[in-house]
Amino acid sequence: MSSVSIIGTGNMARTIGTLAVAGGNTVEVMGRDHAKSADLAKSLGGGTTTGEWGAVPAGDIVIVALLFDGVVPTVAHYGDALAGKVIVDISNPFNATFDGLAHREVTSIAQEVAKVAPAGADVVKGFNTVFRHVLENGRPDIFIAGDDARAKAAVEAFVKSLGMRPMDAGGLKMAHWLEGAGVLTMGLARHGVGGWDFSLGVTELRA
Amino acid sequence: MSSVSIIGTGNMARTIGTLAVAGGNTVEVMGRDHAKSADLAKSLGGGTTTGEWGAVPAGDIVIVALLFDGVVPTVAHYGDALAGKVIVDISNPFNATFDGLAHREVTSIAQEVAKVAPAGADVVKGFNTVFRHVLENGRPDIFIAGDDARAKAAVEAFVKSLGMRPMDAGGLKMAHWLEGAGVLTMGLARHGVGGWDFSLGVTELRA
Repeated sequence: MSSVSIIGTGNMARTIGTLAVAGGNTVEVMGRDHAKSADLAKSLGGGTTTGEWGAVPAGDIVIVALLFDGVVPTVAHYGDALAGKVIVDISNPFNATFDGLAHREVTSIAQEVAKVAPAGADVVKGFNTVFRHVLENGRPDIFIAGDDARAKAAVEAFVKSLGMRPMDAGGLKMAHWLEGAGVLTMGLARHGVGGWDFSLGVTELRA
Repeated sequence: MSSVSIIGTGNMARTIGTLAVAGGNTVEVMGRDHAKSADLAKSLGGGTTTGEWGAVPAGDIVIVALLFDGVVPTVAHYGDALAGKVIVDISNPFNATFDGLAHREVTSIAQEVAKVAPAGADVVKGFNTVFRHVLENGRPDIFIAGDDARAKAAVEAFVKSLGMRPMDAGGLKMAHWLEGAGVLTMGLARHGVGGWDFSLGVTELRA
C-alpha cells in the first residue's frame, strides 16, 4: 500500500485518485480550491483526505496532476514542503498542433521539475503515455523514468497496486523520450490506429 | 506483392530480405561489394537478384539497410536513380551512450534523407523501433511515418505481406519521435524490461 498525495482536482486527478483508492492506497487531494478538493475527496471515498495547497503533503508519493505549464511553478511554490517526497510528473507538454513538444530543447517537464525540487526529493516521470479513458478503463503499461532507484521502486509498487505493469525506461533524461512517446501516441490515434482505445505497450516476442 | 530493393548486405538487409522473400515479394540486393550482394541474394533465394551500387533499383520500394551515418550519403550518391521510388529509412541514430539521438536538433535521418532525395521520391520511416532478432522471430508492430499517402500505403502493404501490423504515426516529422521510440526501446531493454525479447506495440484497451 502506498500513501499518495495528488496535487490537482481535474480529470487526471480524479482518474488516478479513483484507481489509487481501488488499489487500496491512502489518498490525499490538494487543490488550489478547497471546495473542489473536498468534493473530489468525498467522491473518491475510501477515507480520502484533503490538504492545503502548498502544505507538506501527507503522502510519500506526490502526483502532480496539472496541465504541463503549471507543474514546474507548482513544485517551486511547494518548495521545501516536498523535501523527501517522490514527485511524479505525469504531464504531456504538447505543442499547439499536438505533433511535437512545447520545448524544443532535449529536456522534459520532469527534468525541469528536478531543477526546482528541494533537496531530498526525487522525481519520476510516468503515466503520460496513456490517454485518460484508457487509464480509467484498461490496464495499460505504465512507462516510468527517474534517477533514484528507491523512488522508482516506490512508483512501481504504486503502479502494481493499480493492476498495471510498470516499465522502467531508465534515468530521468529518458523522460524526454517518454514525452516523445506521448506525442507518438497522439500521432497514432490521429492517423487511425486503434480508434483512440489503445496505448503503447510492451509486446513480448511472439511467433 | 511488392517489389523491393535493399541497399546493404548486413544483418538488417539479411533479416528484411528473408522476411520479404517469405512474404512473396520480389527482392533485389544492392551492396557496395558485388560478391557480398551475390552471396546474400543466393542465401535469400526466391529469385532474389542483385543490382549495382548506385544504379536504378529494380524495386518500387527501396529499403536503405545501412548504419545511420551511411544513409544520407548513400541516398545522395544514388541521386536521380531513386526518382519515383519509395525510400524507406530504418535507421537508429543512437548517440554514443545509446540513451539519446546523435542529432540534438528536432530532426531525423528520414527527414534528412528527404532533403537529398530526388524529385518524385518519397521517404517513409519504419522498422526502427524493433530489435533485429525480434523482427526475425516475432510479429512486432511496425510503426511508420511519412508525408505521402501513396508511399505509406505501399509500405503498409509490404509490412502486411510480412504478417505484421503497420501503425501509421503521421507525417515525416513524426520520424523524430519514432527515432525517440527506438531510444526508449533501448532504455527499457537496458533496465530489465522483457529480457530484450520484446518490442513497443499497440495494445488495445483491455479491461
